[in-house]
Amino acid sequence: MMNNKIKLLQDKINKDLEAIYNNGPNSLVKTFNYVISGKGKRIRPLLTLLTSKSLFGDYNKSYNAALAVEILHNFTLVHDDIMDNDTLRHGKQTVHEKWDISTAILVGDAMLAKSINILSESNYNDNLLKSFNSALMAVCEGQALDKEFETQKNINQEEYFTMIEKKTSYLIAMPIEIGALAYNYALKDAKKLFNFGLSIGKAFQIQDDFLEIMSNPEIMNKSLDSDILLGKKTYPIILCNEVDKNFIKEIIKNKNTKEIISKIRKFILDNKLDAEIKNTIENLYQEANNCIQTIDFQSNELVNFVNKIKTRKK
Amino acid sequence: MMNNKIKLLQDKINKDLEAIYNNGPNSLVKTFNYVISGKGKRIRPLLTLLTSKSLFGDYNKSYNAALAVEILHNFTLVHDDIMDNDTLRHGKQTVHEKWDISTAILVGDAMLAKSINILSESNYNDNLLKSFNSALMAVCEGQALDKEFETQKNINQEEYFTMIEKKTSYLIAMPIEIGALAYNYALKDAKKLFNFGLSIGKAFQIQDDFLEIMSNPEIMNKSLDSDILLGKKTYPIILCNEVDKNFIKEIIKNKNTKEIISKIRKFILDNKLDAEIKNTIENLYQEANNCIQTIDFQSNELVNFVNKIKTRKK
Repeated sequence: MMNNKIKLLQDKINKDLEAIYNNGPNSLVKTFNYVISGKGKRIRPLLTLLTSKSLFGDYNKSYNAALAVEILHNFTLVHDDIMDNDTLRHGKQTVHEKWDISTAILVGDAMLAKSINILSESNYNDNLLKSFNSALMAVCEGQALDKEFETQKNINQEEYFTMIEKKTSYLIAMPIEIGALAYNYALKDAKKLFNFGLSIGKAFQIQDDFLEIMSNPEIMNKSLDSDILLGKKTYPIILCNEVDKNFIKEIIKNKNTKEIISKIRKFILDNKLDAEIKNTIENLYQEANNCIQTIDFQSNELVNFVNKIKTRKK
Repeated sequence: MMNNKIKLLQDKINKDLEAIYNNGPNSLVKTFNYVISGKGKRIRPLLTLLTSKSLFGDYNKSYNAALAVEILHNFTLVHDDIMDNDTLRHGKQTVHEKWDISTAILVGDAMLAKSINILSESNYNDNLLKSFNSALMAVCEGQALDKEFETQKNINQEEYFTMIEKKTSYLIAMPIEIGALAYNYALKDAKKLFNFGLSIGKAFQIQDDFLEIMSNPEIMNKSLDSDILLGKKTYPIILCNEVDKNFIKEIIKNKNTKEIISKIRKFILDNKLDAEIKNTIENLYQEANNCIQTIDFQSNELVNFVNKIKTRKK
């Protein structure tokens, strides 16, 4: 599937998302559609649809589940933005910033409700439902760990990987898995696809955090600034702590985030942590690749799409 | 089923609720169990179980769904308490008061996640799932309307009933309906039970609001105080506004809630609104009764339990 086919699919997803909730209390309908019209890349529903397409040649049976996944993802963004005090998302004000916390809590809840309603009104089955619901619980637990880690100094790599697996990777792995499960794909093989998703989910997250910290520090990045000041544990931060457990603690006493980020970049380069990070990302992609060696794809849409994300430069 | 049998069932529900979530991030497990150990009366799971018992002589097939309902209910309480700024719930500090808003948002989300996980891991079927999910969406919409009404002066009875139907009655009607649906009861008859629940749900709510406002004003009632100052629309308030649309607006300029409540009580008695309220409650119970005339109960547990709630004096 070429890039313009992806673009057409994104457009279709966007159009269908906008048609989902237009009849309800005004305060909810307005905010729901404000969130859903954000300029997300629709990676998760695309993963569902491209998995179905690659395995079965179409995606009719997984289409509604793909929409449910995107709404679920947006629910997590709205609530996480409150918890992380983020003011911008996809270049727009976050809901709690534009309206208030109550509104943001409630529209998040309604998104989650709508998401599982769409699922139960479409072509679901037991296994698909279980996969979806497990991911929802995992995401809540991942967010809880992420918040717990903010106030904990010594988080090791194992703890970090448990956290991003739940917080980030489940919402990459489940969308892929349900693209297969919607067609009653063998559970054993669906699990391989799920594990593929867990690995690429971790790789994406580390890649994101690495690109973010290494990109031009002149570019204002509110989200990165607030993450660092909150004490968020990303993979680059974990590695810095491994080299010197007091380094981050010391530099964040200075509240000038631009200087903090410059120091972190220098520390990463001085200690050759950039090579280690790139190596970890590469290993995760390799691990992912190993998971799907025995999967009998009809076509390459899923793999090509993942490669496209892999090689992006932000 | 005698009162002590209800008590035994409550104890069993409480014990099983406490066993549900003990393995996860500490910040979530702790708060989840703090909420779930609150001294709620477990009315909703009891409605599920007593419906099953009355229709089919047991409740094995609906037991997990009943637990899911209670956890769903607790999710709504935790999030509503944030939105309504309530500091106490069942005599204990609310989660956002004891910890913080982020913790309360997240444990609410996790409760909802756990609730639908329990459901999808037990003896569910399509109809049961749809009933559960529709109630979840209704509750979100009801809460949205309730918040919208706070800042709107002229809410009429029809608008009010739409709001409490969604906010309160769905979470009475759905638990009853799924007590039947878990046993694949005929949809047409399950719908009658659902409508029975909608009517008693409205009656319960109006009865609660009426008892609350007419009870001894010397008793400190933080929740009532804050509701009135927030501008919450309850049935007694709606009727006061019908008699004089400026009455409430004028008296809440005085911030002494004890005086405000005394004035509302006097206004209700002077205008004989108490008789109108009692009449509405009685009509709703009559309406409820009509819904289940043709239902073939094996025994009276459900009806007796509803009568017990009906005749309570707080």
